[in-house]
Order: sequence, then structure tokens, then C-alpha cells
Amino acid sequence: MRLDHVGIAVADLEAAQDRWAQLGYRPKAQGEVSTQGVRVAMLAAPGGGPQLELLAPTGPDTPVGRFLAKRGEGLHHLAFAVPDVAKALADLRSAGARLVDEAPRPGFGGHLVAFVHPSAFGGVLVELVQE
Amino acid sequence: MRLDHVGIAVADLEAAQDRWAQLGYRPKAQGEVSTQGVRVAMLAAPGGGPQLELLAPTGPDTPVGRFLAKRGEGLHHLAFAVPDVAKALADLRSAGARLVDEAPRPGFGGHLVAFVHPSAFGGVLVELVQE
Repeated sequence: MRLDHVGIAVADLEAAQDRWAQLGYRPKAQGEVSTQGVRVAMLAAPGGGPQLELLAPTGPDTPVGRFLAKRGEGLHHLAFAVPDVAKALADLRSAGARLVDEAPRPGFGGHLVAFVHPSAFGGVLVELVQE
Repeated sequence: MRLDHVGIAVADLEAAQDRWAQLGYRPKAQGEVSTQGVRVAMLAAPGGGPQLELLAPTGPDTPVGRFLAKRGEGLHHLAFAVPDVAKALADLRSAGARLVDEAPRPGFGGHLVAFVHPSAFGGVLVELVQE
């Protein structure tokens, strides 16, 4: 279990990349998760460690589009790498956590991921990512 | 430059610590920053890496109290460790960033810290912490 990345909702991917370049974050991968209606830019940390995942919606009626309309740009989620997403999800379900994804699904870069509802972690949206 | 911790606003420090224990985070230090009206619990990551800083307000008319009233519990800020907070602050000011703290000040644990206004990082409140 380690912090893999911090997800940040942004209106414009390119402007956001310039912003974080000030702190040494560099573009590592870019793409789209069409099932979630989101364009993604993954930024590598200058000295290794957790990445920043910039998320820009492809339209207003998408999860990140609705987030931006409600809260504006800013911190969106924390993603933790785990050896087995299905097992971690089952453990959290047993502990009473409400889940967004009942089973792991492919996320950015084809990694298996699953989201846990913010109610389980005091308002923090948590993503589990297969290592 | 590395991600030192993720700040999370919470209503109740003890309940929040139990929550994050599910992901292996363990209490490392606890205290109060009276000038900011906040009680702090620093949680160590299971495998090292960035810590979680839980922030509970001592009253409603404090920065974290107002944050909770407006947005509820959740992600609050990202803190980056830098070798020289004063220099990093000067660099950001030169680049046009709006600052919360014009000069470094003592933060939790006596570390020199300074906050940069969320407008400089697309809605993300950024803290600089002296290494």
C-alpha cells in the first residue's frame, strides 16, 4: 500500500501542466478514459514518488465535469497502489465501506482500478490501483 | 522538491485516524498550531512516503473551521518539502503567484512553512515545508 498519485480536476490540461512544471512535475503520459469522459495527463514527480494525475472532462455531464461545476478546479482524489485491488475492495466492503465500483475495472493506462465512495474516508474519494 | 504530506480537513481527529488505519496509516505525532486554530494528527504511511496530515479546527472561526463549513470534510492541501522555503516563495512570487504567507512562519512541529494561494495552482492550496 503506497500513495500512487493525487488526482486533480482541471478545466484545461495544458494550462495545468504549465502550472505544475513550476514545482518540477513533468508530463509522463497522456490519454483519455472514454468510459469516464475524462482526458488525463499523468505528471512525474521531480524526485520520484507519487505522481499528479490531471483530469479534464470531455463534457459537462461526466463525473469530473459535474465536480468542476459544483466545486471548481482542485484536489479530486487520492490513489493508492495495492497488490490486489479485488481483495482490497472486498476487505473495505466487509468493513462497511460504500463503494463506487463494485468490481475492479480498467482505468488510465489499462491498470485495474476501483473507486471507494468518499463517505468511507471522510469526504476523500479514494482510488485503488493494481500495482 | 518532494510531496511531504497531504492535508485533510476533518471534524473529529480520532474518528479520522481510525478511518485511515484501514489503509495502514499510523499516528506519528499530534499537536496544536494555536496561531491557526487547528489540531493536527500526522499519520505515517505504511511503506514510507508522503504522510497524511489530519486537520481539525479548534472552533468555527478558523481557516479549517471555515473550510469545513463551506466544503465539508475532505482533501485540504498538498505540502511539498523544499530545501529553502524563503527562496521557493520568492521564486513563486516572481512568477506572479499570489501568496497566503509573505514570509515563512513556524508550522506544525516547528518546521518553517508557507502557504501559496490556491489561485496559483488551479484551486489547489499548496504548502511549502522546510526540509
